[in-house]
Amino acid sequence: MENIKALMEKHLDNLTKPRGSLGMLETYCVKMAEIQGQVPPKIDKKGIYVFAGDHGIADEGVSLYPREVTRQMVLNILAGGAGINALAGGTGWEIALVDAGVRGGDFPPDGEIRPVCRFLRERITGGSRNSYREAALTAGETGAALERGRALAKDAAEAGYGLTAVGDLGIGNTSTAAALLVAAGFSAGDVVDRGTGIDNAMLEHKRQIVEEAVRRRNPPRDGEAILRELGSADFAMMAGFILGLEGRGIACVLDGFPVSSAAYIAWLINPKVSDWLFAGHLSKVAGHKPLLERMGLEPVVNLEMRLGEGTGAVLGGHIVELGVLAARNMASFADAHVTDTGKDEKNF
Amino acid sequence: MENIKALMEKHLDNLTKPRGSLGMLETYCVKMAEIQGQVPPKIDKKGIYVFAGDHGIADEGVSLYPREVTRQMVLNILAGGAGINALAGGTGWEIALVDAGVRGGDFPPDGEIRPVCRFLRERITGGSRNSYREAALTAGETGAALERGRALAKDAAEAGYGLTAVGDLGIGNTSTAAALLVAAGFSAGDVVDRGTGIDNAMLEHKRQIVEEAVRRRNPPRDGEAILRELGSADFAMMAGFILGLEGRGIACVLDGFPVSSAAYIAWLINPKVSDWLFAGHLSKVAGHKPLLERMGLEPVVNLEMRLGEGTGAVLGGHIVELGVLAARNMASFADAHVTDTGKDEKNF
Repeated sequence: MENIKALMEKHLDNLTKPRGSLGMLETYCVKMAEIQGQVPPKIDKKGIYVFAGDHGIADEGVSLYPREVTRQMVLNILAGGAGINALAGGTGWEIALVDAGVRGGDFPPDGEIRPVCRFLRERITGGSRNSYREAALTAGETGAALERGRALAKDAAEAGYGLTAVGDLGIGNTSTAAALLVAAGFSAGDVVDRGTGIDNAMLEHKRQIVEEAVRRRNPPRDGEAILRELGSADFAMMAGFILGLEGRGIACVLDGFPVSSAAYIAWLINPKVSDWLFAGHLSKVAGHKPLLERMGLEPVVNLEMRLGEGTGAVLGGHIVELGVLAARNMASFADAHVTDTGKDEKNF
Repeated sequence: MENIKALMEKHLDNLTKPRGSLGMLETYCVKMAEIQGQVPPKIDKKGIYVFAGDHGIADEGVSLYPREVTRQMVLNILAGGAGINALAGGTGWEIALVDAGVRGGDFPPDGEIRPVCRFLRERITGGSRNSYREAALTAGETGAALERGRALAKDAAEAGYGLTAVGDLGIGNTSTAAALLVAAGFSAGDVVDRGTGIDNAMLEHKRQIVEEAVRRRNPPRDGEAILRELGSADFAMMAGFILGLEGRGIACVLDGFPVSSAAYIAWLINPKVSDWLFAGHLSKVAGHKPLLERMGLEPVVNLEMRLGEGTGAVLGGHIVELGVLAARNMASFADAHVTDTGKDEKNF
């Protein structure tokens, strides 16, 4: 790996630009080279997996939107009308929507709904149980969700994605994310947020529900146990996907707070995941920043977004890709007959 | 304009997302609607104009690269090997390279160099004079450069660009930029930077040269006079381009420090230019941030880049475009049959 880093830096230093002048794009490119084990790295195709699931804790009145919105938004993405469709389309990402655990009956067959993107029916449960009252998942459901997530990492390799991203969708997801993090040692005051936009009274109620759910479930500080007691199928599947990328030479860009919380649980299970993760953006959701810092990740963009669905991941991930594109397509000083003083300093 | 703003915000609030959750993308979209006078705004094509010119002040040993590099980099862009080719290509921008004032003989005809992008031969002078020793431009050259810049704004309208950007290229350009700004009232300590990467001793020398050039030329605080005494053809043409966009309904994204300095001179001539400008990125060059603040502009991305050529402008400008794309392509709550509580707050 040290060798790849040095080779990548040398490659970048020979390109027709002052050394280091592409800033963070060069940093991303070096990390991509390390992940792929090749200089320069290469991204032929990019794929984002958007994990949809329902959250029993939403029954406690922690969200502004009713639970049927999860299902409605799945159909909206499949029809091409959501934010992620617009932003992934404008940045060259393929979308796979994963039904990890949406509540209610099965969705109609593809022939009927004619999805504009891949629709992966990987449902483990029809929504997690309410962790304020009982364990969110069974041990079997937790293991199955982690396993299917790992299988999707294999799917990404088979699809030929040089870069992947993770997005999420589901009413109640910021409450589940906060509960996972409180169980992992964060303070509720730092990680409970307004989600889709609740007021102060509702925020205080949400904080109390999250804290009490964690107190009641009281899992050991173990990733799989935390997911079982307080998580959901979509969070467990996201963690499984991130863990499953190990050894595949595929990078993964995180979206905002819920996705980063799932990544944090994956990180508890295997702290090496930071090696292949990028933080696509800094969300406006409270708690996102300390969470990323704990995993050693710096967000690519900071645009005060808090939509989810992977919208921040596709923006930041596209900038990572542009760094790779520059490294691959720029001419060297020698090839372009540009005078290289060789004297400019990268760091001062 | 107030009406357009309200209509645009209403349009955004009807889309299937929590209100305000696209953050800065919504802010950019509202500004684009105001510039174009339509809801939602529209960007069919994007064009970046990269202005190349030489700077007599480079004779004073203020840059690490020899002056022939300006010409070499023009040929590199025309051959498709520069940073801007990679990044504009990856974000869907058309490039027009403008020879505003490159030193030396004419470039070979297009049939011989086969440029990969448009090459606009608008040369006013073969490089500005050394402002440390004499006025950089004559009054006639200054007026002609401003006029040709304005004519390029007309070219942008004819090309059908809904969004334009400005980049620049030329050894010595950060010295010229600093001199313009010191003449406009900034302190040399705040705006003289390492450029392509000079060391401390050379930086102090550069600061002294810039300060002394301004003291010797001592122009009145008038945009055109400052450009004449301390500027160059490329800076005057950039200012003319930005001024010439008035009333055309076309937005313009600024690149880093030199481009923003030219924009600042345009702003001195007509402070309304801020209404149609975006700051594509925050450069690593010292002095860029206070300069943008003075014009009321906030950079879209901050990636520690300092390459120039418009590389930061195309990245930030693409994100502006994505905001417009979301506004145009997302479904409304009603059309997608998604429940809208209508209660979520945009500001808290």
